[in-house]
Amino acid sequence: MGPAFGKIPSIAACGARPAFGVAIAVRVALGQFNATVGDLSGNVETMKGLWARAVEGGADLVVFPEMAICGYPPEDLVYKAHFVADNRVAAEQLAADCPDKTIVVGFVTRSGGHVYNAAAVLEGGRITQVYHKCLLPNYSVFDEQRYFKSGTQPLVISVGDVNVAVTICEDMWDSEWLTDFLAEARPIHLALNISASPFDVGKMESRGQIITRCASALHCGVAYCNLVGGQDDLVFDGRSILADATGTIVARAQAFDEDLLIADIEPDGGKVSITPTQAVVAQPETALDEVYQALVLGTRDYTRKNGFKKVLLGISGGIDSALTAAIAIDALGAENVIGITMPSRFNSPETIADAKKVADNLGFELKTIAIEPILTPFNKSLSAVPGWDDRGIAYENLQARIRGTILMSLSNQFGALVLTTGNKSETSVGYSTLYGDTAGGFAVIKDVPKTMVYQLCARMNELAGRELIPNDVITRPPSAELRPDQKDADSLPDYDTLDTILKGYVEQDKSARELVDAGLPVEEVNRVIRLVDLNEYKRRQSPPGIRITPKAFGRDRRLPITNRYRTSVAPAHQ
Amino acid sequence: MGPAFGKIPSIAACGARPAFGVAIAVRVALGQFNATVGDLSGNVETMKGLWARAVEGGADLVVFPEMAICGYPPEDLVYKAHFVADNRVAAEQLAADCPDKTIVVGFVTRSGGHVYNAAAVLEGGRITQVYHKCLLPNYSVFDEQRYFKSGTQPLVISVGDVNVAVTICEDMWDSEWLTDFLAEARPIHLALNISASPFDVGKMESRGQIITRCASALHCGVAYCNLVGGQDDLVFDGRSILADATGTIVARAQAFDEDLLIADIEPDGGKVSITPTQAVVAQPETALDEVYQALVLGTRDYTRKNGFKKVLLGISGGIDSALTAAIAIDALGAENVIGITMPSRFNSPETIADAKKVADNLGFELKTIAIEPILTPFNKSLSAVPGWDDRGIAYENLQARIRGTILMSLSNQFGALVLTTGNKSETSVGYSTLYGDTAGGFAVIKDVPKTMVYQLCARMNELAGRELIPNDVITRPPSAELRPDQKDADSLPDYDTLDTILKGYVEQDKSARELVDAGLPVEEVNRVIRLVDLNEYKRRQSPPGIRITPKAFGRDRRLPITNRYRTSVAPAHQ
Repeated sequence: MGPAFGKIPSIAACGARPAFGVAIAVRVALGQFNATVGDLSGNVETMKGLWARAVEGGADLVVFPEMAICGYPPEDLVYKAHFVADNRVAAEQLAADCPDKTIVVGFVTRSGGHVYNAAAVLEGGRITQVYHKCLLPNYSVFDEQRYFKSGTQPLVISVGDVNVAVTICEDMWDSEWLTDFLAEARPIHLALNISASPFDVGKMESRGQIITRCASALHCGVAYCNLVGGQDDLVFDGRSILADATGTIVARAQAFDEDLLIADIEPDGGKVSITPTQAVVAQPETALDEVYQALVLGTRDYTRKNGFKKVLLGISGGIDSALTAAIAIDALGAENVIGITMPSRFNSPETIADAKKVADNLGFELKTIAIEPILTPFNKSLSAVPGWDDRGIAYENLQARIRGTILMSLSNQFGALVLTTGNKSETSVGYSTLYGDTAGGFAVIKDVPKTMVYQLCARMNELAGRELIPNDVITRPPSAELRPDQKDADSLPDYDTLDTILKGYVEQDKSARELVDAGLPVEEVNRVIRLVDLNEYKRRQSPPGIRITPKAFGRDRRLPITNRYRTSVAPAHQ
Repeated sequence: MGPAFGKIPSIAACGARPAFGVAIAVRVALGQFNATVGDLSGNVETMKGLWARAVEGGADLVVFPEMAICGYPPEDLVYKAHFVADNRVAAEQLAADCPDKTIVVGFVTRSGGHVYNAAAVLEGGRITQVYHKCLLPNYSVFDEQRYFKSGTQPLVISVGDVNVAVTICEDMWDSEWLTDFLAEARPIHLALNISASPFDVGKMESRGQIITRCASALHCGVAYCNLVGGQDDLVFDGRSILADATGTIVARAQAFDEDLLIADIEPDGGKVSITPTQAVVAQPETALDEVYQALVLGTRDYTRKNGFKKVLLGISGGIDSALTAAIAIDALGAENVIGITMPSRFNSPETIADAKKVADNLGFELKTIAIEPILTPFNKSLSAVPGWDDRGIAYENLQARIRGTILMSLSNQFGALVLTTGNKSETSVGYSTLYGDTAGGFAVIKDVPKTMVYQLCARMNELAGRELIPNDVITRPPSAELRPDQKDADSLPDYDTLDTILKGYVEQDKSARELVDAGLPVEEVNRVIRLVDLNEYKRRQSPPGIRITPKAFGRDRRLPITNRYRTSVAPAHQ
């Protein structure tokens, strides 16, 4: 993370107004709001409220994010002609209900037999112009070339004396292309970009660089209006941006929350001055704070947008479930979080006590259901099959599946969403039981490496000024406790080594050779890579969870299950 | 299905050879083989064997399918630089080991910083030329624009007196574009197309039309070499094709099996004659036969390519598990299929007897594990939670999850893959228990609508000339038997209506309005659509299964879980 995350850029002074020949300032309002995919009328209602506030605040131009009408990403909903038609009707409704001033809003449009990711300009109660997004991302989590045709024409609108070039998200990520594309359309005072740009660690820094580069290349101000909110595995972080023609960022909107960012744009000779009307807002101080806020928002939105009020989760006394509970409480309130602890004879008295301590410290309800009365008859029934072994991996998995079934039974009975507690390190190497600890609706920390789980807990305690996560939970060597004296370290490398290998292999697509050449131990590299490859089938059946790294499992990393390709280094050749 | 499926096209006569001015025939061999994704050395070994057979058979040109070196689709393996490099080495190895004659083979290539879906021409022990695929499909199950850059240059190679235009799969699906693209490259005697074209019902007819159109437009012969084999949810059906310059299909290779299709290509004045050297091979007689063969091959390849020998599945006495068992037996042999029947007090004596009858008729081993001794203590433990109800849906799901856990426990203990038995109708509306009957590695009939399950069973019995699937199993009204006297018909429309609605909504993206206007009952349309939408989360965690329709669940239909969009028709307005 760059140093910019911890501090707030100072607001650039507007400077004294020259006496003559100066254009009148135009007030722009960026309506950074939490859209829900498919909730056309709900999204329009929210935008109407923001528009009214913006107009009241003197705005001439009100801007909403990419696909604000229908939410992002709508995925294959776009293949439904009725969905595209309904989203058009919703945009027309917004225009009709908000006839004053100019609005720019993202939606999906059909034209000449093609479908476009588009921005509508609303004026005088109707859609007056439409811009079609040109650069369509088709990598990482994006599939835009699956749905949309590329636009070919720039759109520059005049709002008062200010010429505004309308662009959509990716259009701004190639400043060289954009400069060429807009060459005939000058002069431009403001490059407007409506986005649905998902969060990952480091994304904000890239965005800042791109906006700076774009402002410098086009010699104009930049207004960047981003979506906010959780949508399945993605979290949109908001943090809309205003930059002046020197590329200096003059204002940022709230992180991970709705906001209305208002500023005056004033063409000033060859320059453009941008003056925010509000005080600066606090930004996350550290990368860990960013991640934590993303996890909280992602959990809240997945739960609420899918119609759940309460969540439940298994509390083992370990660090992963403790962190997941803490996130859920910040997302939904402690009264909406129910912990279930499900001890067996393999759980130490210390972890059983820690489960209670976690619940006490965080203040949520904890119920206990011992699994022994179920495990014993279950094992007896399976023992009727010759060859069943009650000291092997199948018996370990049985315990996890009984726990998963208990959670799902309570979920079905009481209508609470089950949160799973597996971290990215475990998810990568398949250190989990399918339909056991992976059973649940949402995997809160599935993209958080174990080493970051520790850092997040330490940071929480630091910010709280007390043992929110009990220190015993942080310091005890991790264990699945599915057999006597089991420790994670018996099966896996230490987590520092594991996470370094995983970052290289999973996130950076490095080969075994490259990892070994970088100094990682050859046996561990080979073993971890093998485990990652072999456990694709488990990940394919795991619940969605919040993406916080530049490459998460899921739509971001699409690997075949049937796959005989292996990268390894012969130990003798290291 | 078109009428072509039931019969074999006759081989076009080569005609008498004119005495003068006639070019010498060139012999082409299409090596339709079962590649495994990532198995670079294994794929090369298989191709070496086919090449040797082809050369022995007098072939001048030996052709292998799209991405035959690395298997298709490699998905994000292509993002790994070491994978692309290793696949290049494998192609060079094939060239070195097969120095005689000309080979055209599909692989992945990197050039000028871009990655291409490519065809290598191998001659004299090395790669002499490379063609880059131009039209990159990015719809349905395809994501090729995620990985590849489009080629821009045609490649026409000379083999003896025959000019061969090399194309890859999608390149041939737009004959107008292809005619323009090849305009400068004429004369062309043979359009060669290497493909990895997955099966669905109706695909063979489309392919035939496209090849006919292409031959007519280019006035040349067409040699179409398709991949065969199962890869996760896809099945490639082979059926490579030779067509003459009039567009007449003169030969088809085996369906759902490896084959080496050899023919002589002879430029003959303005025409091109094509003479296969072998007798015609039998093709599937009906669309049902095609589907059945696809299910068998898909099951065999998923099981074997993932290193399993045996499979196990729950046998309920119902039709879905009976059909799944029959497919597994044809795929793997009865000795590798283990059925587990897990009765409860809700199972009627008839269905318990039918489970036994299914096993007897099909000849596989059946074990019985009654769930009551597990269900009773499990229910007792859950009853400790105030509000637990042992007559509700949670209790029904508990039974299914105990069964799922039994199967998974035996799978873990004995290393057999669990097959799930849910059909497409159930999968669509979520008539299943997550981690219960959806628990398993491969969902054999997940894309087969219930009405087709009945048709397939009737066809099996017809072909066998006996009750392979017991008639009682076919005629008894379907029931999940999770509560007293439960019937599917209590919760769902009759299956004819359900499947008609599902085809319209799931496969054709129709709106509620369109379905009601087509005469379907409004309450059922609204209810089924609601169920399909609400159960996206279950499908997301279900195992992969074989795609047989033009739109399957999975990568073929990508919908958000969090999605408030609903299409419905107000009953008053019908």
